Amino acid sequence: MSFNGEATSDVPTLPGTHSGIPPYLLDKARRAKDGVFDTRTKPVNERRRSVAVPQGIERDVFLKALAELKEQLGGQHVEINDKPLVDGWYMEHPNTHDMMTILDDEELVASAVVYPGSTEEVQTVVAWANKHRVPIFPISMGRNLGYGGAAPRVRGSVTIDLGKRMNKILDINPDDFTCLVEPGVSFYALYEALKEKGYDHMWLDTPDLGGGSIIGNTVDRGVGYTPYGDHWACHAGLEVVLPTGEVIRTGMGALPGNNTWQAFPYGFGPYSDGIFSQSNYGIVTKMGMTLMPNPGGYESFMYTFPNEEDLSLLIDIIRPLRISNILENVAQLRHVAQSVAARGLPRSKFYSGDGPVPDSVIHAAAADSPVGDHTWAYYGMSYGPEQFRAYKLSLIDAAFRKIPGTKKIDPATLPEDEYFWSRDRIAAGVPDIHELRWVNWTPNGSHIAFSPVSPIRGVDATALFALGKKYHDKYGIDFFPAFCVGLREMHLIVEIVFDRADPQRRREALDCLRDMVDEAARLGYGEYRTHLVLMDQVAGTYSWNDGAIMKFNEKLKDALDPNGILAPGRCGIWPRRYRGRGWEMTREKGIVAEGDGVSDE
Amino acid sequence: MSFNGEATSDVPTLPGTHSGIPPYLLDKARRAKDGVFDTRTKPVNERRRSVAVPQGIERDVFLKALAELKEQLGGQHVEINDKPLVDGWYMEHPNTHDMMTILDDEELVASAVVYPGSTEEVQTVVAWANKHRVPIFPISMGRNLGYGGAAPRVRGSVTIDLGKRMNKILDINPDDFTCLVEPGVSFYALYEALKEKGYDHMWLDTPDLGGGSIIGNTVDRGVGYTPYGDHWACHAGLEVVLPTGEVIRTGMGALPGNNTWQAFPYGFGPYSDGIFSQSNYGIVTKMGMTLMPNPGGYESFMYTFPNEEDLSLLIDIIRPLRISNILENVAQLRHVAQSVAARGLPRSKFYSGDGPVPDSVIHAAAADSPVGDHTWAYYGMSYGPEQFRAYKLSLIDAAFRKIPGTKKIDPATLPEDEYFWSRDRIAAGVPDIHELRWVNWTPNGSHIAFSPVSPIRGVDATALFALGKKYHDKYGIDFFPAFCVGLREMHLIVEIVFDRADPQRRREALDCLRDMVDEAARLGYGEYRTHLVLMDQVAGTYSWNDGAIMKFNEKLKDALDPNGILAPGRCGIWPRRYRGRGWEMTREKGIVAEGDGVSDE
Repeated sequence: MSFNGEATSDVPTLPGTHSGIPPYLLDKARRAKDGVFDTRTKPVNERRRSVAVPQGIERDVFLKALAELKEQLGGQHVEINDKPLVDGWYMEHPNTHDMMTILDDEELVASAVVYPGSTEEVQTVVAWANKHRVPIFPISMGRNLGYGGAAPRVRGSVTIDLGKRMNKILDINPDDFTCLVEPGVSFYALYEALKEKGYDHMWLDTPDLGGGSIIGNTVDRGVGYTPYGDHWACHAGLEVVLPTGEVIRTGMGALPGNNTWQAFPYGFGPYSDGIFSQSNYGIVTKMGMTLMPNPGGYESFMYTFPNEEDLSLLIDIIRPLRISNILENVAQLRHVAQSVAARGLPRSKFYSGDGPVPDSVIHAAAADSPVGDHTWAYYGMSYGPEQFRAYKLSLIDAAFRKIPGTKKIDPATLPEDEYFWSRDRIAAGVPDIHELRWVNWTPNGSHIAFSPVSPIRGVDATALFALGKKYHDKYGIDFFPAFCVGLREMHLIVEIVFDRADPQRRREALDCLRDMVDEAARLGYGEYRTHLVLMDQVAGTYSWNDGAIMKFNEKLKDALDPNGILAPGRCGIWPRRYRGRGWEMTREKGIVAEGDGVSDE
Repeated sequence: MSFNGEATSDVPTLPGTHSGIPPYLLDKARRAKDGVFDTRTKPVNERRRSVAVPQGIERDVFLKALAELKEQLGGQHVEINDKPLVDGWYMEHPNTHDMMTILDDEELVASAVVYPGSTEEVQTVVAWANKHRVPIFPISMGRNLGYGGAAPRVRGSVTIDLGKRMNKILDINPDDFTCLVEPGVSFYALYEALKEKGYDHMWLDTPDLGGGSIIGNTVDRGVGYTPYGDHWACHAGLEVVLPTGEVIRTGMGALPGNNTWQAFPYGFGPYSDGIFSQSNYGIVTKMGMTLMPNPGGYESFMYTFPNEEDLSLLIDIIRPLRISNILENVAQLRHVAQSVAARGLPRSKFYSGDGPVPDSVIHAAAADSPVGDHTWAYYGMSYGPEQFRAYKLSLIDAAFRKIPGTKKIDPATLPEDEYFWSRDRIAAGVPDIHELRWVNWTPNGSHIAFSPVSPIRGVDATALFALGKKYHDKYGIDFFPAFCVGLREMHLIVEIVFDRADPQRRREALDCLRDMVDEAARLGYGEYRTHLVLMDQVAGTYSWNDGAIMKFNEKLKDALDPNGILAPGRCGIWPRRYRGRGWEMTREKGIVAEGDGVSDE
């Protein structure tokens, strides 16, 4: 089996809504001369395919069940996945798999993709799945890049693509600073709606890439870069279809005739929202989100620091400033290698050798960038009226200048296309996709994330940096570290960029990740989120008291999903009928899909 | 059956730790000449009592089971509740019942109180309860005044008084601004510890009354008055004993050797903390809490507004200021009647007639207070350096002065004992108990709360004010309303003060509450928290989609607590074996304790 391996710029026209990116930006992407986004499209793989029938059900029975579902939802809303797989994240194509697959692309594929148009139709699909014991895997828009994209955890699952038809902004409340959205509403879409209505007094918060679903990002506990960056903490109210088909509304949503569903998150009694994040206990069909008041002014700033060893002191300087909200958004300290990659140029332009690009080459490549010959870049934003910003920026400046050689970059000197301006937009709540340029680093560029949580301490930053470097060197992978300080903790975020058409590169990337996860856990660092293929391993590191939390999670799973149909294996939680049956992936075995359903005719 | 009905000042000496109030304050309380706290002690009721054996178990079998538990925990840690009940919230007495009972004091009583000294001993008690099918009711310190105090929901439950022996501050981290506490740590105790260590860079947040448990308040989703006032949102990490006896640690606590349990709340996988708030799914034995950075300055302010009708415009003025954090803490708008009551003088000093005290009398009583002849008082705090405060206070001043006749009160004119200074302390994170003075309003003063959630809108404030007034008038009860604006919602907080020795006054208070809860729900307003005896009713108002949320809650309950031993009925959640068996209280029946166990020998 093989990939074609060549990029193409033949991007079909498509509606912007489903892609999550507005049409004007798609146009811009299509016209881009620097190759940005080109690698986002994968050529059609012409090998013939048959449907990946889920384990434990006969092909004929399964196809008959799908026919039944077509009758219930309408034939056009049930798409059988029997055509060649097509990548391309801003194209109108079915969400059949992970467009950045770390495994062979035939591994984590859906047997079919269904498009419910309402909560009732989601219930219909759930009832159907229970009747036929078919694993279903809900996605909002399938843009969970670096963490599995649109792929289901169990091969042959029926993917419920919620976002294609359920993409309405149901409410924007300009008095309460809240909104209510369906799964298909992207950060871009909400941003556009706020602009269209002239609601300049409200900001949204956006993650690094704005093309994804607000619900999808939030229930996966993704983060953004304004003071409202903790998306989970900022949501208010869920509507959830349970694995047995009932619909609940959480918080005040459970009170008939209420007018506070989005204004007060808790309601009365157990606050159950949290168990619907990073789990497989329910399908979120509506979510409330709070919006940030326009802070009355904002101002991006950038500092660079000369030496790799400055990291330790710098992190200790950042900690009290961040906790005290002098640094008001996620503090980002990015390594020069990451800045170079974010420019969107291929690695081959700088280096043609094997193994990691040498430091000297990275520094040479950065010479004409604002990072220059320095090693670390800090991107930040100060909010509020001018006199507030001046005060806070003066404290920050005094603190950062304790690092010898620190440079403050004057934004006025930076060209329009500089990465700084992407950070500026995002920290001001303007969705962007510049960040993704780093995938141009390799042909068929894809990325997968390592993101351990640690205290905000120089000693921890140094340990994690060394850990990452050690295993990247071992596997000959370029190391792009960035430290993101949430509030009282930090994440090292390492995106491994790899050629998804090259099985060996994929394997090296995955092995490197697995080694890093294990060693991080030995040191007391755990992942805050992970890719589908690493979920069992990561969940296994949260093993205190003989794995008590997983036993608890499994008890909830069995109670809520007795037939084990909803997203089996997501976040490492397997329903009873899947447990201990060899579903766990290992690096030796790769992904295993037992029984029938795997064919390559 | 009767109460003695007379207050006494015979307050025994006791260690401060268990009461939650430091000794110096107890001394002050004892010496107080104005009667404050005197009504907190109830004279011994001399009627002889027998143990309130829980329903469904024979007395002999139960007493034998208790003997077994004594062998396991040590006899001194299992106290059988067979002596006359004694009130008094700062005395060293067993937490056998609600010291502010709204029912006859023999209704919601424990059969015994046990004092585990460790998480392992909590597990021992849970295993014992499962073995003998005995309902157990965990409390932290039993200071949930106005919401049921220390009482169990089911008569004859064995109360687990966690706080008596598990009262350690396990960690204070001055770098991360976090702490880890056991159930017996009060807001006072943590405050004292911070002072003792000289950690002036960290503040805690305290609710109106500082003598209660941090864990107890937080898991009941109580609030305070600094920017860290949403205690639930500010906690980080739980240790929980499940109803089947296993121990879990949530968030990063599930990762062995982690050093981020209190720094990052979420961990990996389902975020399950929320289901342990306002529920009966587990016993919280440790909790992490984040601490607020010293804001570098603070300044209390007070405004008064002349007319009852100013409420509507005022609330609409407050909304954007609060959401934008110009008003930086819970916005409190208190009615003059509430200010008068908070002075701690008895109603009889002002009025001897029946029915509610007339407005004219209230205004006369307030004449020499800062509220004067005005109707509403706003208590607020501005934080940060002087120039920050000046800017925000100028915006607030301009906005508030849109109400004709608005007065800004100069704190320098206020005497040391003015209620303003209690608000000032609390908004600066200094625990206080002044608020409780309002119980002096009646003999044997007790209080019970009505606290519906609404949008921050003039029209809603007006509707809720009218609703409260209507039913207080109907039952002849003095109306003490205060509006507390959280962030995007507000709570009307009404404390009904009643003479708990007078069965008719108790009944009127309860009937008034039940009527208000029902009518509020018809208008779309729901309680955020409620008293034990109202939990079934309030839970019943959250009935969307045929009571879907309660069916969901019950499904979790049955999965986690198959024997139905943990706090049956708390927040309206009954285990299977209790459901549909007439446990629900009605105003006709009062509280029902079926079967044996109720005796008054």
